[in-house]
Amino acid sequence: MAEIKALVFDVFGTVVDWHGSVAREVRVLARQKGLRINAVKFARAWRGGYRPAMDRVRSGETAFAKIDVMHRAILEDVLAQFRVTALSEAEKFHLNRVWHRLKPWPDTVRGLKRLKSKFVISTLSNGNTGLLVNMAKNGGLPWDCVLSSDTFGHFKPDPEMYLGAADRLDVKPEELMMVASHKHDLRAAAKNGLKTAFIQRPHEYGRNNNPDLAPEAEFTYNASSFLDLAEQLGC
Amino acid sequence: MAEIKALVFDVFGTVVDWHGSVAREVRVLARQKGLRINAVKFARAWRGGYRPAMDRVRSGETAFAKIDVMHRAILEDVLAQFRVTALSEAEKFHLNRVWHRLKPWPDTVRGLKRLKSKFVISTLSNGNTGLLVNMAKNGGLPWDCVLSSDTFGHFKPDPEMYLGAADRLDVKPEELMMVASHKHDLRAAAKNGLKTAFIQRPHEYGRNNNPDLAPEAEFTYNASSFLDLAEQLGC
Repeated sequence: MAEIKALVFDVFGTVVDWHGSVAREVRVLARQKGLRINAVKFARAWRGGYRPAMDRVRSGETAFAKIDVMHRAILEDVLAQFRVTALSEAEKFHLNRVWHRLKPWPDTVRGLKRLKSKFVISTLSNGNTGLLVNMAKNGGLPWDCVLSSDTFGHFKPDPEMYLGAADRLDVKPEELMMVASHKHDLRAAAKNGLKTAFIQRPHEYGRNNNPDLAPEAEFTYNASSFLDLAEQLGC
Repeated sequence: MAEIKALVFDVFGTVVDWHGSVAREVRVLARQKGLRINAVKFARAWRGGYRPAMDRVRSGETAFAKIDVMHRAILEDVLAQFRVTALSEAEKFHLNRVWHRLKPWPDTVRGLKRLKSKFVISTLSNGNTGLLVNMAKNGGLPWDCVLSSDTFGHFKPDPEMYLGAADRLDVKPEELMMVASHKHDLRAAAKNGLKTAFIQRPHEYGRNNNPDLAPEAEFTYNASSFLDLAEQLGC
């Protein structure tokens, strides 16, 4: 087996708790403004618009755009859907930046520090660079490098993302491992020759849902947290 | 004056001591192999081939290439010029990677940590991403982000580098400050609307040379070190 030299991480869901972070801020905002919003459903609806928006870029239907721009367009739709009309431009701008303030999972920072002691660690996210840099500063994420959709002008699962990451980090695809809580992302990485680590994130969509957490023999590693992955990798 | 939000750094010479680091490794290698090489002249000759190689890309004469590839081509020329024929492929590969092992100046790491407490800090270097990531790991450079020539497919002083950095970091050009020990780099940054900080590095080319260290009123800041810059910026 080729030596693993670098790890690239999916971010939303794998590294940070987007659902809990967005729902929390929406709840606080609703209270401040005296609005009645189901914050859990609001967070899921916002996130739900994300993949269709990327797929429209991937199919060539719309031009490449930063996730910040997509998030804002989806937010407008979701606000209309939830009949929220009381937000100022400044409030909407601030709310849209909640994606820069997503909280790491409890094992994230300690796990990344251990993994960083042995490997190059980088994001490989559909988020934009500015968002990922701000998120890292807010959450104390110790990346060696920030690679994102705007680094390559593509979104995962386009091959340009996985192969581009190997090229930028000067490693062979088989020396690079994709770390993600989403099996489709790992399968696309594997198809491009990368190694794979599946991380179980049971609460990515909040409580009371039923995500697919089953380990798979097809993945190079299966782990319950970044600390478990660090342990398995001898960090 | 627009608020400064992020700092981007020239790396070779500004952040790390390329001359001392390269000369030191060449001296050790020469001793091991029983060769007589003037390590100071060797380092300068190697570095001397760098800008002409980039200019050939910038003029369209040759295709874009990573600095690692350019460094290797120049190394072959310099080895021939110094009549060194005794190196194996593995030794040449290792020597070429000396650029990944350049040592920070004594004030660099402490200065960057202070600056990072208040600003986003990123490289903006003609080096390639992999080189800069390895250098940061070797030297403990706490970058928030690594932006380089292969991020943009351009070399400084092309405008795409300075404006691209502002775009990726989601700041306006006037909210971004270029930090460099080279006045031509700063002047190109200023032409594209960035703020500028000149850092005096009297020993960039070793001792016994006469670099232009004069502060200039045209620059936003003039500083004797990163610690001095941090002080002036209130970090």
